[in-house]
Amino acid sequence: MSNSEGQLGSGLTRRRLLTSGTVALAGGAAALGLAGSHAQATTAVPESWDEEFDVVIIGSGFAGLAAAHEAVKAGASVVVLEKMRVPGGNSIINGGIWSLPGTPIQQAAGIEDSPDVMVRDMMAAGLDINHVALARKVAEESLDALMWSIDELGVEYLSEGSQLGGHSVPRSYTTHVQSGSGIVTQQLANLRQLGVEPRTETIMRQLLRDDDGRIKGVAIGENYRHPEDNDDPSRFIKAKRAVVLASGGFGADVGFRTAQDPRLTEAFDATNQPGSTSEALRQALSIGCTPVQLSWIQLGPWTSPDERGMGLAWTFALVCAQWGLWVDTLTGRRVVNELADRKTRADALIAAGNQGIAFCDAGGYRYAEAIPDDRMERLLEREVVRRFDSLEAMAAAYDMPLEPLQQTIDQFNASVDTGKDAEFGRYLQADQFPIGEPPFYVSRLAPKIHHTMGGVAINTEAQALDIVTGEPIPGLYAAGEVTGGVHGASRLGGVAVGDCLVFGRTAGRNAAAEPAWDA
Amino acid sequence: MSNSEGQLGSGLTRRRLLTSGTVALAGGAAALGLAGSHAQATTAVPESWDEEFDVVIIGSGFAGLAAAHEAVKAGASVVVLEKMRVPGGNSIINGGIWSLPGTPIQQAAGIEDSPDVMVRDMMAAGLDINHVALARKVAEESLDALMWSIDELGVEYLSEGSQLGGHSVPRSYTTHVQSGSGIVTQQLANLRQLGVEPRTETIMRQLLRDDDGRIKGVAIGENYRHPEDNDDPSRFIKAKRAVVLASGGFGADVGFRTAQDPRLTEAFDATNQPGSTSEALRQALSIGCTPVQLSWIQLGPWTSPDERGMGLAWTFALVCAQWGLWVDTLTGRRVVNELADRKTRADALIAAGNQGIAFCDAGGYRYAEAIPDDRMERLLEREVVRRFDSLEAMAAAYDMPLEPLQQTIDQFNASVDTGKDAEFGRYLQADQFPIGEPPFYVSRLAPKIHHTMGGVAINTEAQALDIVTGEPIPGLYAAGEVTGGVHGASRLGGVAVGDCLVFGRTAGRNAAAEPAWDA
Repeated sequence: MSNSEGQLGSGLTRRRLLTSGTVALAGGAAALGLAGSHAQATTAVPESWDEEFDVVIIGSGFAGLAAAHEAVKAGASVVVLEKMRVPGGNSIINGGIWSLPGTPIQQAAGIEDSPDVMVRDMMAAGLDINHVALARKVAEESLDALMWSIDELGVEYLSEGSQLGGHSVPRSYTTHVQSGSGIVTQQLANLRQLGVEPRTETIMRQLLRDDDGRIKGVAIGENYRHPEDNDDPSRFIKAKRAVVLASGGFGADVGFRTAQDPRLTEAFDATNQPGSTSEALRQALSIGCTPVQLSWIQLGPWTSPDERGMGLAWTFALVCAQWGLWVDTLTGRRVVNELADRKTRADALIAAGNQGIAFCDAGGYRYAEAIPDDRMERLLEREVVRRFDSLEAMAAAYDMPLEPLQQTIDQFNASVDTGKDAEFGRYLQADQFPIGEPPFYVSRLAPKIHHTMGGVAINTEAQALDIVTGEPIPGLYAAGEVTGGVHGASRLGGVAVGDCLVFGRTAGRNAAAEPAWDA
Repeated sequence: MSNSEGQLGSGLTRRRLLTSGTVALAGGAAALGLAGSHAQATTAVPESWDEEFDVVIIGSGFAGLAAAHEAVKAGASVVVLEKMRVPGGNSIINGGIWSLPGTPIQQAAGIEDSPDVMVRDMMAAGLDINHVALARKVAEESLDALMWSIDELGVEYLSEGSQLGGHSVPRSYTTHVQSGSGIVTQQLANLRQLGVEPRTETIMRQLLRDDDGRIKGVAIGENYRHPEDNDDPSRFIKAKRAVVLASGGFGADVGFRTAQDPRLTEAFDATNQPGSTSEALRQALSIGCTPVQLSWIQLGPWTSPDERGMGLAWTFALVCAQWGLWVDTLTGRRVVNELADRKTRADALIAAGNQGIAFCDAGGYRYAEAIPDDRMERLLEREVVRRFDSLEAMAAAYDMPLEPLQQTIDQFNASVDTGKDAEFGRYLQADQFPIGEPPFYVSRLAPKIHHTMGGVAINTEAQALDIVTGEPIPGLYAAGEVTGGVHGASRLGGVAVGDCLVFGRTAGRNAAAEPAWDA
């Protein structure tokens, strides 16, 4: 046998178990109801640390920044680590739409809604495999988080509400810049006032889990350049109270996503920023976090094949989903309920051979013109959205049979008259009007990878749950897209913001309140 | 700071990292194509061991026993650990049906088949998320494993082939006792001759992964009584060459299965033996195995609510799927293609409110009478299967409307005349006959949890893949239901046997050929 203290070249001290000791039994297993709780793998922990903070936050999107805000407010010293060159994660390119029940806009419009109705919508889209307590927390606490974003962060929203697919009523807010950057920018400015600036190009290399099962800190690599792997040698940051994992999803990670869903090869574009990869999630799983529903990966149905990534055309496609139609160019018929959940719509478009378009007439385009930031001008200039003076010209441009297209429009207009979409049961807007006034505007549709539903298991206190014991891992919280269960099989549109902000705030508060382990 | 060598009460030596050392970089990440490979959590490893073997096998079902056979044949010393009181795992209550292409029975019957066709069937049922290289290996190597089971183990099969749902042609063998015990018994007898007897009531408590990333052995608990957690203090078994994880699925584990699919509460019965729980899988995930598709859990569609667990009635329901019909008692109409894959059938039955029955007439019952072991007599005696002298009596017993039932039968019989099932496209048997000859026999249908598709990621060499590096974990193999990817979203009937035997044999061979780490 080798010595019990053989020094490894890597700087790790080799640890040896004395013979015949019993393996430590962990506590109960209430949280996940797991049977058979025993010892947990651990990592090497340094003898001394390069730096220390009460709370170490991995990721600088909605969730990480919300956690930072609450932790600092609670008196904790905080560091936020971000592997990319700029903070904001995928949140900064998020659509800036937030779906939540009981809002002032809904009240002004007389729209009845409640957390119960929203949970039902989330479960319907999620194919009933959502962890319902997590979904309920998002539905119940989003309104408070919205008011916090306005009152404490100064986020500005458009005064008009809207409706996204799968929501049974209009319940969406939109930031005034129609992007998640409208929230992230305010979060960053607020944190700067509180003395916290995310450290960019700093990657979490390992969650350090000690032999007592507690997370004690992280190993980091500095001067990291994504996607190269060439960071500086590791330094060690002690987390005196807790680590908050808010590292986002893995939609841009072809290797890990195809392990979970082999269909989603590099042939699929993703709406995510290139940093939406799985390193942090895999580190979390490697030290005993519980994987949940990793194979459910969502495609956004409203993206265009004529621009890369998320692009801009999706905003126009959303307008068409409310005031226009989505049709199959091969048949001239509607593809799907344009306000169905994302999975239903993406599946229908793919099944139809990815030949769908979203279009609206001049009446619908008035809503598109309200899209801020000159987006429609840019889309038209780039010919991602195209304009046609007549239905005939539109049909000809996409090799679409004119007669069934005209029948499709006539049938929808008849539905507008009766107030009920006979074909697909789509929710009709209060001001729904017949389609037909030229010119017509069109965007092609090609579903792209958008959100990874799965991740690490958490409870409603944002505590990460151990795969062996089912209990919270001491000193580890998680929030946002890196977690699994909130959305089940498929996330509804506009619920990412609430998910991240609600659980991020909870994680930050609880992390700051965790007793210091070296006290 | 505490000392670098502080002794813990549990017998673990606390390990400390020297400051400023770099975290060890692991090798490439080819197998899963993962980016960002870094250090891995490890477990404490004992200074000396209580026992040692070349190969330590966890689990004594098809896969574990097949691995043991090959490892011993290759000259390795082997121990097989089984937590339950008897060996055989879930395999011993498996239905004993093995679906594979290119068999002697198929050749004698002139049925054309090939591994390509079988892979296509597996992918169709698996919703195209199968890891195709793994599926292909099962399809290509099952015939060799079948011949091995006959020639080396002496397994006896019925001379008649059959067809299970989702298979495009009849390709199933059945053991002469119509149970997996027909294989397990021979595996155990063969191993006894080779000097290996599984150690029962012995649970694997921890896979011991050393700081070099290698699996060095296991911590075990003896005198274990499932499901109590009261085993003796741990002992340590050194695995000089490798550990083979063949611990089966988690269908009977309510806590873990509801974490992955919250619908599958204790309200659902399972066909599995009570030991089909997740302890070993969770240990494997805790030391860095990669989770794959854990949320896909299959319900068997052919089970009866009138008996517990797997029961016996499923064999009768399979006969009805080939020569009778499955109808909804509320409507008198067929529910589904009776030979569709399991997921399609279970989903259809649940959607129809779990009011389905399987029935056949006197002609179909001649096939049921061929079921060995007096099963039909026992089923009739217990009234799990009931006999009716007329269609009228049968309809009345289940409150089923007679007229649509008669129409359903007439419609199917018309399909028999034309040789094509117009309603559902069911494959019609070569001797398909019209239904109508009394008496009629009926079993109620209630889907039960049957197989967990997800598990740890492996490659075609049965090497378990690391969540951090994507590379094989040195010294760890896995086979059978504890692995994920072979079956994708839903396993086809009769493919578990081939999956377990093919990968079990590969794992055993490769484990025995692994260089000894203490050499």
